[in-house]
Amino acid sequence: MDFKSTIRTVPDYPRTGIMFRDVSTLMADAKAFSSAVEKLSAPFEKFEISKVAGIDARGFILGGAIALRLKAGFLPLRKPGKLPYRTFSEPYELEYGSDALHMHVDGVKPGERVLLVDDLIATGGTAEAGVKLLRRGRADIVSAVFLVDLPDLGGARRVRNMGVEVNSLVSFDGD
Amino acid sequence: MDFKSTIRTVPDYPRTGIMFRDVSTLMADAKAFSSAVEKLSAPFEKFEISKVAGIDARGFILGGAIALRLKAGFLPLRKPGKLPYRTFSEPYELEYGSDALHMHVDGVKPGERVLLVDDLIATGGTAEAGVKLLRRGRADIVSAVFLVDLPDLGGARRVRNMGVEVNSLVSFDGD
Repeated sequence: MDFKSTIRTVPDYPRTGIMFRDVSTLMADAKAFSSAVEKLSAPFEKFEISKVAGIDARGFILGGAIALRLKAGFLPLRKPGKLPYRTFSEPYELEYGSDALHMHVDGVKPGERVLLVDDLIATGGTAEAGVKLLRRGRADIVSAVFLVDLPDLGGARRVRNMGVEVNSLVSFDGD
Repeated sequence: MDFKSTIRTVPDYPRTGIMFRDVSTLMADAKAFSSAVEKLSAPFEKFEISKVAGIDARGFILGGAIALRLKAGFLPLRKPGKLPYRTFSEPYELEYGSDALHMHVDGVKPGERVLLVDDLIATGGTAEAGVKLLRRGRADIVSAVFLVDLPDLGGARRVRNMGVEVNSLVSFDGD
């Protein structure tokens, strides 16, 4: 399946010079969506993944579907102020300023096998915060999976340098 | 399956007097999650649902999984400033102030059979905005489905009064 052709590029969003990769058009396409979930899940079928951790908010769509496919539970990694129970938090840098990702303190059990999921990896700041959160819960991170990788921005390399395997379906160069 | 026992109640969140129903504990439980997705999807298997519309952000988790289960595409209904392409928007009231929900203008095709999904229905403000957005795209809304209904807050009745069927798995009275 040619996933790339199902992704819409919106020029100059969120600001001039950025080519925004809009995965909503891939997800809107029933065949592309189920095929993407299948391709991202299948390598982990034998790994007894017990939880899929999805990053707020587009990572929830793919993460929910992958959790169902792998018969795993789902764990949300969220922006500040969104989780009702006690949380761990990890800050990450943005181009201007910083933000943080939160996880419920009982979100994972020590040794639990977890797949980290988001729609897209760019600089890898949020993914790195996700890895740190899961490790604070002493989870065993089997892999981090993304629909789209923007390799020029170095995020996949950054996550691999933390000792986490990275898988993605589509790569856009020159971003 | 006793879904209710898998939902954590967090007292006094987000403020004093509110009993917050935390569905993250249901979703974290692999059996409860897949069973909930199954129960919410099964009634619509014969309806040729072509798109599942999930409400930002917890509706994305369940919506992604239901879309996979029903072999449908996924459509995000999002908070302002989150969708990169042109959008329709519908405002809704909050206890203090208001907010809005957005949908890409090409999110649905006229006559397309859509299931609206969120984790919880309380006063029904966001669900009503979701129904209005889908109708602006002239979608055929087959049903609105929720994990949790808080019937005392009247949301399900409000959505039914718009002519949309409502289904939910768990109901908490006295909220």
